[in-house]
Amino acid sequence: MAFLALNLLDSGVQLSMLCAAIGLIFAFVLIAIVARSPAGNERMRQISGAVQEGAKAYLNRQVVTISVIAVIIFILLFIFKDHPTAIGFIVGAFCSLSAGFIGMRIAVIANVRTTQAASVARTDALRMAFNGGAVTGLLVVGLALLSVSIFYTVADKMIGHDMAVRSLVGLALGASLISVFARLGGGIYTKAADVGADLVGKIEQGFEEDDPRNPATIADNVGDNVGDCAGMAADVFETYAVSLIGAILLGALTLAGNPAAIVYPFVLGGISVLGAICGVLFVNFANGKPASMLMGAVGASALVSAILFWPATHRLFPDGLVVGGVTRSPTQLYFASLIGLVMTAVVVVITNYYTSMRYRPVQKIAYASETGHATNIIAGLAVGQHATALPVGFIGIAILLSFHFAGLYGIAIAVMSMLSMAGIIISLDSFGPITDNAGGIAVMSNLPKEVRAVTDELDAVGNTMKAVTKGYAIASAGLAALVLFGSYVEELRAHLVATGKILADQFFQFSLQDPKVIIGLFIGGLLPFIFTAFSMDAVGKAAGAVVREVRRQLQAKPGILTGQDTPDYGTCVDIVTKAALREMIVPALLPLVFVIAVAIIKPLGPVVLGGLLVGTIVTGLFVAIAMTSGGGAWDNAKKFIEEGNLGGKGSFAHAASVTGDTVGDPYKDTAGPAINPMIKVVNIVAILIIPIFF
Amino acid sequence: MAFLALNLLDSGVQLSMLCAAIGLIFAFVLIAIVARSPAGNERMRQISGAVQEGAKAYLNRQVVTISVIAVIIFILLFIFKDHPTAIGFIVGAFCSLSAGFIGMRIAVIANVRTTQAASVARTDALRMAFNGGAVTGLLVVGLALLSVSIFYTVADKMIGHDMAVRSLVGLALGASLISVFARLGGGIYTKAADVGADLVGKIEQGFEEDDPRNPATIADNVGDNVGDCAGMAADVFETYAVSLIGAILLGALTLAGNPAAIVYPFVLGGISVLGAICGVLFVNFANGKPASMLMGAVGASALVSAILFWPATHRLFPDGLVVGGVTRSPTQLYFASLIGLVMTAVVVVITNYYTSMRYRPVQKIAYASETGHATNIIAGLAVGQHATALPVGFIGIAILLSFHFAGLYGIAIAVMSMLSMAGIIISLDSFGPITDNAGGIAVMSNLPKEVRAVTDELDAVGNTMKAVTKGYAIASAGLAALVLFGSYVEELRAHLVATGKILADQFFQFSLQDPKVIIGLFIGGLLPFIFTAFSMDAVGKAAGAVVREVRRQLQAKPGILTGQDTPDYGTCVDIVTKAALREMIVPALLPLVFVIAVAIIKPLGPVVLGGLLVGTIVTGLFVAIAMTSGGGAWDNAKKFIEEGNLGGKGSFAHAASVTGDTVGDPYKDTAGPAINPMIKVVNIVAILIIPIFF
Repeated sequence: MAFLALNLLDSGVQLSMLCAAIGLIFAFVLIAIVARSPAGNERMRQISGAVQEGAKAYLNRQVVTISVIAVIIFILLFIFKDHPTAIGFIVGAFCSLSAGFIGMRIAVIANVRTTQAASVARTDALRMAFNGGAVTGLLVVGLALLSVSIFYTVADKMIGHDMAVRSLVGLALGASLISVFARLGGGIYTKAADVGADLVGKIEQGFEEDDPRNPATIADNVGDNVGDCAGMAADVFETYAVSLIGAILLGALTLAGNPAAIVYPFVLGGISVLGAICGVLFVNFANGKPASMLMGAVGASALVSAILFWPATHRLFPDGLVVGGVTRSPTQLYFASLIGLVMTAVVVVITNYYTSMRYRPVQKIAYASETGHATNIIAGLAVGQHATALPVGFIGIAILLSFHFAGLYGIAIAVMSMLSMAGIIISLDSFGPITDNAGGIAVMSNLPKEVRAVTDELDAVGNTMKAVTKGYAIASAGLAALVLFGSYVEELRAHLVATGKILADQFFQFSLQDPKVIIGLFIGGLLPFIFTAFSMDAVGKAAGAVVREVRRQLQAKPGILTGQDTPDYGTCVDIVTKAALREMIVPALLPLVFVIAVAIIKPLGPVVLGGLLVGTIVTGLFVAIAMTSGGGAWDNAKKFIEEGNLGGKGSFAHAASVTGDTVGDPYKDTAGPAINPMIKVVNIVAILIIPIFF
Repeated sequence: MAFLALNLLDSGVQLSMLCAAIGLIFAFVLIAIVARSPAGNERMRQISGAVQEGAKAYLNRQVVTISVIAVIIFILLFIFKDHPTAIGFIVGAFCSLSAGFIGMRIAVIANVRTTQAASVARTDALRMAFNGGAVTGLLVVGLALLSVSIFYTVADKMIGHDMAVRSLVGLALGASLISVFARLGGGIYTKAADVGADLVGKIEQGFEEDDPRNPATIADNVGDNVGDCAGMAADVFETYAVSLIGAILLGALTLAGNPAAIVYPFVLGGISVLGAICGVLFVNFANGKPASMLMGAVGASALVSAILFWPATHRLFPDGLVVGGVTRSPTQLYFASLIGLVMTAVVVVITNYYTSMRYRPVQKIAYASETGHATNIIAGLAVGQHATALPVGFIGIAILLSFHFAGLYGIAIAVMSMLSMAGIIISLDSFGPITDNAGGIAVMSNLPKEVRAVTDELDAVGNTMKAVTKGYAIASAGLAALVLFGSYVEELRAHLVATGKILADQFFQFSLQDPKVIIGLFIGGLLPFIFTAFSMDAVGKAAGAVVREVRRQLQAKPGILTGQDTPDYGTCVDIVTKAALREMIVPALLPLVFVIAVAIIKPLGPVVLGGLLVGTIVTGLFVAIAMTSGGGAWDNAKKFIEEGNLGGKGSFAHAASVTGDTVGDPYKDTAGPAINPMIKVVNIVAILIIPIFF
């Protein structure tokens, strides 16, 4: 029996490794295809080179800064925690950083080639940008699946099953914490540059987007790569790895009797790599409108996964699985896995509604712009808040159903299957910054207007896709964090029993009737509010510095405006780089400080901490969805007006819509998405410190 | 023993009635003083008359609309619930409406007299505005204390103690529900008019505030009275009555053995009326800077209450009180009551820091305005979110301490003592709209600049006071709602035991490990987000209508701009009136719909509902504080620039700061404060429907 169990464990994990390898190979084929495509003329390559250089320079400095912090935490873990956890932490941190690098490298190869393809045909440009994104998607997912499975297999052999599972928490912390830094650093960079460039460029001087006379324009394009590509890749790597680890942990903590419970998440992940490949093939061979092609890819990917999950589930659990004292049939487990796929579709459709310019919410913001800056802002804030209702409602339904099918483990399975869609979803997300950059290169290289029209259209689709994937990321993060909270409860209980602080059969509850739980909910609920407040402050401060620098340059060299003088792009890049690295530290450390403070301060302790974890999830979910959806809607309201509606570019409404877009920038690209890794850091740190402080 | 107990009950309640009566008499003396003062010249009285007329016309129509809804609910309660509850509901609704009328009537008497006093001396104007506010404060508190105590005494005699306590919940519902409508209707009115007037007047035409050429200017001044005065008076009446009832209910449910537990909240309320009178006397006899004099009044009031609480507590509980199986000494109970007073001071100081132009947060927003509309908005949003941290932290400490001193009853006592400060706090709050109106009358009557300088200075102080009292109102509302949640738990438990659905000794928990509780937290957490989203939409829509009307008038009669034509003020008043009454319905009914839906829909039910109540409190607190503080800070950032800083009026920074102020308007005067009665409606309805649906 033990032999069989071991065998099953190994073969399932090996299957997922195989699938991950297939995904990586496919990604390399795509790289070859993208890289072989023409990269445009001299001027285009030059600009793309400048952007690439700026991005690399920033990322290198970011790695140095983050590495210092990572090493400190590694040492702390090494001393106060066990060595496997510390090693897991470093592995997670390294992979998270690598994912960021991959995302950025591919994007800067694909952007100029998308511009070139846009001068041939819209579909070519679409495929080029999508394939660039797909490389990131497949590499990130493959990396996550491989790193967790290899680490787990090796640790299992060396230190035994129990310790191996626990050291995975270290890996999760490394991935999450680094991802918070990457999201914040990249997010502050990209939006400080963007906001700064827009405020002086568009509003004061009436420049177009990406006007080469704007001294901040290269920094702006660098930002797209370090924020939207590198930051996002690190973020999704983290969500994927943490969800996988969360499911494994929960499987190990509550269902130790059946090793298939640990293998199942790996298998779901592996299968979905194949689904993602089918989605990529769909875009490359189907035809249609850009948005339909991309949505078709998600559909194809989900369909393939849904079909393959059926035999896999029945194979792994021929006799079902006992969860919470009840035997769940393989079909029930399968249903739990389907919920994740359905949730992905639901979130995509809802966010699309709130952020696409074809629907009422975005148009409402556009119409509100006719009466001024303030009404635009009020409308956008309201849309963001409205956009929370449906996703949260469906998350509630998903929790209820997956719990019905397989208890807390069912929620973990739903999360994992939702995350298994990450391969195809990142492809959509990366599509956005690539087309954005492609447009920038088109303008700066003075390519014909038709080329810019193609990239503009794709950019608008990309905006919605970016918002959609953010909705997906935060919804899955919320669910993943709930799974981690479940693990916290189990770990805490086990620890208190083991140390004799409670009896094995004693009831241990986090009850709303307990004021400590309420206080925990308040403290946790606070975290997303001040975390985002610090993030927005950071963007505001850094953007202010950019504005002052641009104004200075335009005053010192009036020839810039007439095109006789070249602006000094480098100073802007330098200012934003320094500001981003300086400003990311405080908000990124905030969750660590909160959790440890609550653990240490005497009248608080483990019960308040439990409340804190849930409080952070609850308000975090709302704040993040409101910010990312509102931001996306503002952006597309501006694009709606720029298409010629309500007076078009240069009108009063347009000026107001630019203000909204600018406010939305830190909302959707800095503060909002950074909540996603943050709520997981909080939960992971809580799990890790149980044996240290309680 | 029973006789003695009854006697104690009666005499304590009678004491509170006596104090309430003293408060009312004092208020009538103040009215005489205010009304006897000179009301200025012909032109001033004319303008003040127009404002008064508009306000009365609106309030009358609002009463009709709300009455229809109130009657429907009365009938529903009469049929599906018991008659005493239905009658309580009507009493609460009637008193809440009356409180609104009182607030409005006094304000329109005091405003023109403040303008007149401002032409004599600053201190005179300050006292006039403050005394006007104090009348409202004392009348509202007196009315609340009298209505609850009389209703309770009569009901006790007629239907017995238990039913009397329960029918008080009906009174609470009447007060809260009407207050949601009044807050929303008045809030939408005032801000639609304000935003509409500012958008065309200040931003497009460069008018000053209250320029008589602006067709929306009378509507704007009417708005101050129906929103800030009438809406706020109804709101505080509600908070006061509900906190008192919550404390009585909790005393009756959990401490039935000791009638003093029911009398204590009445006594605290009565004593504080005396404290409030001392505060009013302080302002009328002390001298100093406006802000210091007002803060001194709060201090004097709190000091008197703190001193008198001591003998009262020892007299009522000579042997202490048994709470949760532990005997609490009278000193411990006294400490619980002190916590409420200290919390008031703490919240006042914190909100003052975040919204006064003398400190960094407001100045940060002002400096951010130099780089444009968008950076102003980003900075303001960030300040609002930062402002949540300290109040929530202190609320946590207050919960911990008061629970430590006297369990859940201790929290109820702390809330009641916090609310007992309402008399003096409303005086500060009403001060704001009275000075605002006084300034408007000064400008429209072409009074000398020096007069406007005085009213401007007082208006800035009033802004901060308004923000401060909103912070106070929401903090106390959050705590009061927690007490109501405690009552919900007790009622539900008693009901389930009585109907045989659980055993008397069975454990009944709302545990965070239960996915239903999590789902409830999500649904409840959602409520403040979409409630405020609907409210802001309403303001945006109504303001848009005003903007279009003003633009139309200025185009149709170009003579308005030169002063040759008189604008048609009436149409604007009419547009806003209709819009406000139409738009308040949906958001106001939202909490009812949510609670009843969760109660009815099968897989949800009482446990999810419990989660919902807490979820609404948690996010409601954050959203409300962020909105009211952010809004106040935006407003004063504009005032900071208008004082001549950063280029002063007419500068680029000033235009940006006007945008921020306009966004802040619905935040701080519509959406944010309406959360306060909303979270209580949710909890009260939940208590009421227990026997109907569970």
